[in-house]
Amino acid sequence: MSKAIVCHAPEDLRLDTFETEALGSHQLAVRVAYGGICGSDLHYFRHGGFGTVRIKEPMVLGHEVSGIVSAVGSAVTGIAAGQRIAISPSRPCGQCQYCQKGHHNHCLDMRFYGSAMRFPHIQGAFRESLVIDASQAHKLNDTLSLSLAALAEPLSVGLHAIQRAGSVFGKQVLVTGCGPIGVLLIAGLRRAGAARIVAVDVADAPLVCARAMGADETINLSTSPDGLAPFAANKGVFDVMFEASGNDKALRSGLDVVTPRGVIVSIGLGGDSTLPLNQLVGKELELRGTFRFHEEFAVAVRFLNEGLIDGRPVISHVIDFDQATHAFELAGDKSQAMKVQINFGADKVST
Amino acid sequence: MSKAIVCHAPEDLRLDTFETEALGSHQLAVRVAYGGICGSDLHYFRHGGFGTVRIKEPMVLGHEVSGIVSAVGSAVTGIAAGQRIAISPSRPCGQCQYCQKGHHNHCLDMRFYGSAMRFPHIQGAFRESLVIDASQAHKLNDTLSLSLAALAEPLSVGLHAIQRAGSVFGKQVLVTGCGPIGVLLIAGLRRAGAARIVAVDVADAPLVCARAMGADETINLSTSPDGLAPFAANKGVFDVMFEASGNDKALRSGLDVVTPRGVIVSIGLGGDSTLPLNQLVGKELELRGTFRFHEEFAVAVRFLNEGLIDGRPVISHVIDFDQATHAFELAGDKSQAMKVQINFGADKVST
Amino acid sequence: MSKAIVCHAPEDLRLDTFETEALGSHQLAVRVAYGGICGSDLHYFRHGGFGTVRIKEPMVLGHEVSGIVSAVGSAVTGIAAGQRIAISPSRPCGQCQYCQKGHHNHCLDMRFYGSAMRFPHIQGAFRESLVIDASQAHKLNDTLSLSLAALAEPLSVGLHAIQRAGSVFGKQVLVTGCGPIGVLLIAGLRRAGAARIVAVDVADAPLVCARAMGADETINLSTSPDGLAPFAANKGVFDVMFEASGNDKALRSGLDVVTPRGVIVSIGLGGDSTLPLNQLVGKELELRGTFRFHEEFAVAVRFLNEGLIDGRPVISHVIDFDQATHAFELAGDKSQAMKVQINFGADKVST
Amino acid sequence: MSKAIVCHAPEDLRLDTFETEALGSHQLAVRVAYGGICGSDLHYFRHGGFGTVRIKEPMVLGHEVSGIVSAVGSAVTGIAAGQRIAISPSRPCGQCQYCQKGHHNHCLDMRFYGSAMRFPHIQGAFRESLVIDASQAHKLNDTLSLSLAALAEPLSVGLHAIQRAGSVFGKQVLVTGCGPIGVLLIAGLRRAGAARIVAVDVADAPLVCARAMGADETINLSTSPDGLAPFAANKGVFDVMFEASGNDKALRSGLDVVTPRGVIVSIGLGGDSTLPLNQLVGKELELRGTFRFHEEFAVAVRFLNEGLIDGRPVISHVIDFDQATHAFELAGDKSQAMKVQINFGADKVST
Repeated sequence: MSKAIVCHAPEDLRLDTFETEALGSHQLAVRVAYGGICGSDLHYFRHGGFGTVRIKEPMVLGHEVSGIVSAVGSAVTGIAAGQRIAISPSRPCGQCQYCQKGHHNHCLDMRFYGSAMRFPHIQGAFRESLVIDASQAHKLNDTLSLSLAALAEPLSVGLHAIQRAGSVFGKQVLVTGCGPIGVLLIAGLRRAGAARIVAVDVADAPLVCARAMGADETINLSTSPDGLAPFAANKGVFDVMFEASGNDKALRSGLDVVTPRGVIVSIGLGGDSTLPLNQLVGKELELRGTFRFHEEFAVAVRFLNEGLIDGRPVISHVIDFDQATHAFELAGDKSQAMKVQINFGADKVST
Repeated sequence: MSKAIVCHAPEDLRLDTFETEALGSHQLAVRVAYGGICGSDLHYFRHGGFGTVRIKEPMVLGHEVSGIVSAVGSAVTGIAAGQRIAISPSRPCGQCQYCQKGHHNHCLDMRFYGSAMRFPHIQGAFRESLVIDASQAHKLNDTLSLSLAALAEPLSVGLHAIQRAGSVFGKQVLVTGCGPIGVLLIAGLRRAGAARIVAVDVADAPLVCARAMGADETINLSTSPDGLAPFAANKGVFDVMFEASGNDKALRSGLDVVTPRGVIVSIGLGGDSTLPLNQLVGKELELRGTFRFHEEFAVAVRFLNEGLIDGRPVISHVIDFDQATHAFELAGDKSQAMKVQINFGADKVST
Repeated sequence: MSKAIVCHAPEDLRLDTFETEALGSHQLAVRVAYGGICGSDLHYFRHGGFGTVRIKEPMVLGHEVSGIVSAVGSAVTGIAAGQRIAISPSRPCGQCQYCQKGHHNHCLDMRFYGSAMRFPHIQGAFRESLVIDASQAHKLNDTLSLSLAALAEPLSVGLHAIQRAGSVFGKQVLVTGCGPIGVLLIAGLRRAGAARIVAVDVADAPLVCARAMGADETINLSTSPDGLAPFAANKGVFDVMFEASGNDKALRSGLDVVTPRGVIVSIGLGGDSTLPLNQLVGKELELRGTFRFHEEFAVAVRFLNEGLIDGRPVISHVIDFDQATHAFELAGDKSQAMKVQINFGADKVST
Repeated sequence: MSKAIVCHAPEDLRLDTFETEALGSHQLAVRVAYGGICGSDLHYFRHGGFGTVRIKEPMVLGHEVSGIVSAVGSAVTGIAAGQRIAISPSRPCGQCQYCQKGHHNHCLDMRFYGSAMRFPHIQGAFRESLVIDASQAHKLNDTLSLSLAALAEPLSVGLHAIQRAGSVFGKQVLVTGCGPIGVLLIAGLRRAGAARIVAVDVADAPLVCARAMGADETINLSTSPDGLAPFAANKGVFDVMFEASGNDKALRSGLDVVTPRGVIVSIGLGGDSTLPLNQLVGKELELRGTFRFHEEFAVAVRFLNEGLIDGRPVISHVIDFDQATHAFELAGDKSQAMKVQINFGADKVST
C-alpha cells in the first residue's frame, strides 16, 4: 500500500491510498524521493486542466521525480536495489509511425505521467512508491542529490527546446520568461555555447535566478524605460529567441528584435495568439513549437551528474509530502516561488 | 524619351514620359517586352499600398519584366544588342551584413523595382525602356517566348518558398491558394520532387490551372463537404504546407493537417493573424516566412529555358501598354484572370 | 513447391526447388513476376562476394522484384489476391537503437533479401513464389508494367542517395558512372529539381541512356580531350557530385570540380580509396556515404506509378527464368547490357 | 621602422627591418604584443612549406597575434589608441562569389597573414608594428591578458570545426590528436555542450592538457591495451569525431567507432590518405573538411573575454622576440611544447 497525491477536482487534492503494483520482469520498483511541481500540475490543481484538456476522473499528478530502486524485475540487469535514479515520465510505444521516425514525443500511444490528454488518464508519479520500466531509470552519481536529480525532467524540456532551435553555438539569444523552465533553459543555453544570453521578465526575482543560471544581461520589462527597443537595430540582433512566458506580447515584441531568418522557439502551451504575420514573412522568421523531450532526458541527467549544469538556484522550496496542498499553493505564487519540490521521504530511509 | 506606367494615387494610373537614363559602363539599355502585374502592383493601384507601406510620391510600378538589349555598356562583356533577356528586379548592395551572409533578400539597402518600402521610392520597370545593371540580365533560349520569360520573377518567388521549406523531395505537400504565385509554386514543387501535391482554393478556375501546373489533387473548400478533414488523420498527413492565399482561416486549417514537426511556409504579406499557438507547440510545427528570392532567379530562367517548367497555363491575358488601367482592373478580377501581362511592344520590332 | 536461383559458389548458379513457406497472419503469398540483377548479385555470382562479405552456404540471390499477390494472411486488410505489387526487400527489426532513430537502413538485425552480410545468410527473392510481410507490398497502378515496377528497388537506392545529399533543388550536379544505379539516380535528380546534370562515363552507350533519363550534358572521359577540367574554374562549379562508378580516379577528379562546401555522395561499395585529404580539407568538402534506402521505396513506387519517372530506357534485356546463368553473364557485359531482368512468369498467367 | 620575423628559406629565420606602413583612413596602427606559433608557421620554418604550397620569396610569418592600438585612421570610430585587441588575420575581399554566399574563408582573393598560397605571398603578422583594417580589431576585456588573447585565432579554428560538424550539443564526441588546435577544440566542445568528450593521442602530456581543457576521458593509444576497440560496439558509439592529428591511422580507426550517419571532421592539412571507402558507404558516414574560420573569430574573443573558455593550460612557453629561432625550435618539440608564443614587447610599455 502506498499513498499518492490525487487531483479530484480544481483545488481538491487528496492523499489517496493505492495497492502496490505488481513488478514485471523488465520493471523496477522504486521509492519516490522528490517530485517537482510543474506548470501543468498547477493547471490541473487550479483549473482542472488547460485548453481542451480536462480532468474527467481522479488523477495522480506529477512527472518530475527521482527515487531509489527497491526491487528489480527478473529480466533486468545492470541495476540493483538501493540505486538512486532520475525517472523519465515518458513512455512512448516504440511502434507507431512517429516512434519509427525517432519522433517519440509525438507517439500516437504516449503514456506520459500525470496527463489528462487521454482517457482513461495516465496516472502520475507523485506517490510514495512506483513501478517503472527499467528503461525509465537513469542512474545518479554519488555527488548529485536526489532533489537536484528531480530537475532532470524540466531541464530536458529546456534542452529539447534548444535542439529545436538548431544550433545556438556562438549565437545571440533572447529568452522571454524566467520561470523554472526559462532559467533551466538558460543554463542549457550557456552549456550549449550561446555567445550572449539576454533574459527578460516582468519581475526582478526570476531575473536574479536567470543571472545565476548563466544569463549575461537581464531586463525587467515592467520597469525598463527602453525595454527591447535597442535590440531592434538593423532589423534585429538576436539569432534565436525562446518564448517561455506564454505571453502574447512577449512573442510579438520578439518579432522586432530577431534578425532576418532568425528562429523563435515557442515553449508555452497557451491559447490563441495574434501575430503580425507580415513581419514574420518579410523577415523570413521561423516560429517553431517545442513539446516535451525524448533523448534529452539522458543528456540532462549527464549534465547534472557531471556538474556541467548546477540546478541549485532553481529550487526555492522543498515541502513534505503530507503538506501537498500547501506546496501547490506556494508553487502558484510567483512572487516567492521558483521550483517547489515535494519530499516523498525515500531518502530519509536509505540515502 | 520613353513612357512608363506611374501610380499617382489609388486608382490613378498614368502613362508619364521620362528622359532616357544615361548608360553606365557596367550597364545595359533594354527595350521592355512584357511585364506581369503582381499582387503588390495591384495593392498600390487599388489602395496606394499595403500595411504600413504607402505611396508618398508618384511611382512607376512593375517588377516582372522581360526585354531586348538595345545597347551595351563599355565594360560589359558576353552580351550583345538584340539579346533577349529576363530582368531580375532585385538589386541588393552586396556590402551590408545580410549580403555578406548570403541573405541578399534582406539587404539593408535593397533597391527592388516598384517598391514604396523606402522613400524616395524605388521606381519600377513598367516602362518602354530601362537601363539595368548587367548582372540583372538573364539570357533566354530561342525556344522561350518573351512573354513566358516574364514569369521568371513570380516563379522565383515560388522557388525561394520551396528553398525555405527545406527539401520537399518525396514529401506530401499542401498548397492553399492557387493564384499566380500558388500555381507557379506548384510547378516548382512538381519539379522539386514532391511526391504528392494537394492544392486547395475557394474557386474552381484556379484549381483547373493548379492541375495543369502539376497538382495531383485539388479541393474547392467552398463546395467540398469534407474540406481538409480527411487529411487530419493520425495528427496530420502533410509534411509541408505552403500558405499562398493570405487567408487567416487557411493557415489555421493547416495546423490540423500538417504532421508533427511539419513545416508551414507563409508567403502572403497579410496583416495580423490569430493562431492557436498551443497546437503549433504541441505538434512542434514550424511556421516560416518567405520573402522574394535571390539566387533562385537564375534557376527560374534555367527551368523556363529548358522547358522543365511550362508557364503557359498561368498567363490568362496579354494587354497592350496603352490600356494599362484596363489591365490592372482585369488583374484584380479573380473570376477571370490568372496572370495578366502588359505588352510593352519591344518584340514587335525585333523578335 | 517452387524453384529459386541459388548461388552455390562462384559461377555456379542452380535452379533449386524449395518447399512453399507457410503463410503467417500478417503476410502475403506472392508469385514473383520480374527480378532485376543488381551489382551485388553479380559479385556473388562471379566472385562469391565482395570485400569481407562471402557466401558460406548456398544462397538464393535477388532483391529487385515485382509480383502478384496469390494469397492473403488472415490479419491483412486492404489488399486482395491478384493485386500487382512491387516488393521491398528490406525488413528492419523496428526495435533496435537505429530503427528507433528512424535510421532503419542501419538496423542491427536487418534481413535484406539475398545478402551474405549475416550468417546464416538472408535468402533472396529470385524464386517463383515468395511469402512476404504485408508491409513489404507496394501496390501498382494499372498503367505500370510489372517489369518497370521491378525498378523500384534500384530507383530507391538513387532516391536515398539524393536524400543523403541534402537538397539538390536548383543545384549544379555531377554524376560519375552511368550504370543502372547511375542513370536511375539521374532520373531522380531531374525529378528532384537539379538545375543542371552533367553525367560522365568511360563508354558511350551508358551516356546515351543517361541523356534519355535526363542528363543535360554527357562526357565520355575516355575520349574527351578536356575531361572535367573546364569545370574546375574558380575552385569548381558543382554543388553536388554523386560517385556511382566505384572508380577511385572518378572520386579524385571530383575533388577538383566540386565547389567549396560542396557535397560528394559515394554510392559504390568499393575497397580502399586513396584521397588527397588536404584538398577535401582546404575546400571544406563533404564526402558522404549512402547505403540502401528506407522510406524512399514508397516514393519510388509513387514516381513510377504516376509516370513522374519513366524507367524504360534502363531495361536492356528481359530473360526467362530457366536461362538464369545466361542472364547473369549478360548483366556482367557492360558493352551491351544496362539493367537485365529475369522473367519469373507470374504475369503470363494472370495479368 | 619596425622588425619582423622573416622566413627566407627552411631553417633560415631572420629579424628584418621594414618601413612603417602608411595608415589608411579605415585602418589602425598596432603595436604587436604576443604571437602564437602555428603548425603552418612551423612547416614554413622547417620545410619551406607543405604540399604544393612553397615559399618562393622571403615571407614574414605569423597570424595568431594580439596588440595595442597606437594610432587610429581618420574614418574609424569607436576605438582609441591604447585599446588592447585581438587581431583577425583573415581579410577576405567581400566581393567574390564565395564572400557573397557568406563563405568568406573560401574567398577567391583572400589575404591571410603569413600564407604562401598566393604569389606574391601575403606577409605575416610577426612584427613589432602592424597596420590593420579596423574590421580586424576585436576589443579585449580588462580581465583578459594579451597573451591569452593571442589564442583567439587557433580557438577560432576549433570553433569553426565545431560549426562544420553541425550541432554537437548532447552528443558523444571523439577527438584524435591533442596538439594546441585539438585541446582548444576540446574547450570549444565542452562549451558547445558535447555530452561526452573522449580524447586520444600517442603521448601523455597532451592528454593531461586535454583533461584540463574539458575532456571527460583520455586514452594514450601507444600504451592502452584496447585502444578504441571498446567504442566499436553496435557499429560505433561516437556521433562526431574530430581528426586533429593529421595521422592517417587515426582517421581509419575512427571509421570503426563512429556511429552510422555520424560525422567525421578532418582538420589537418595532410597529404594523401587511404580510406576504406566501403565502410564509409556502408555506415553512411560523413567526412567533412574544415578550413580556417570567419565569424567564429568574434565568438572566440567573446568566450575568452567572458572567461567562458580558459586558455591558460594551452600556453606552454612565452619567448622573447629576439629569440625567434629558439621559439620555433621549441614549438616543434612536441615532448615539451604545447602552444609557444613570442612576446613582441608591446605590453611592456603600456599594459
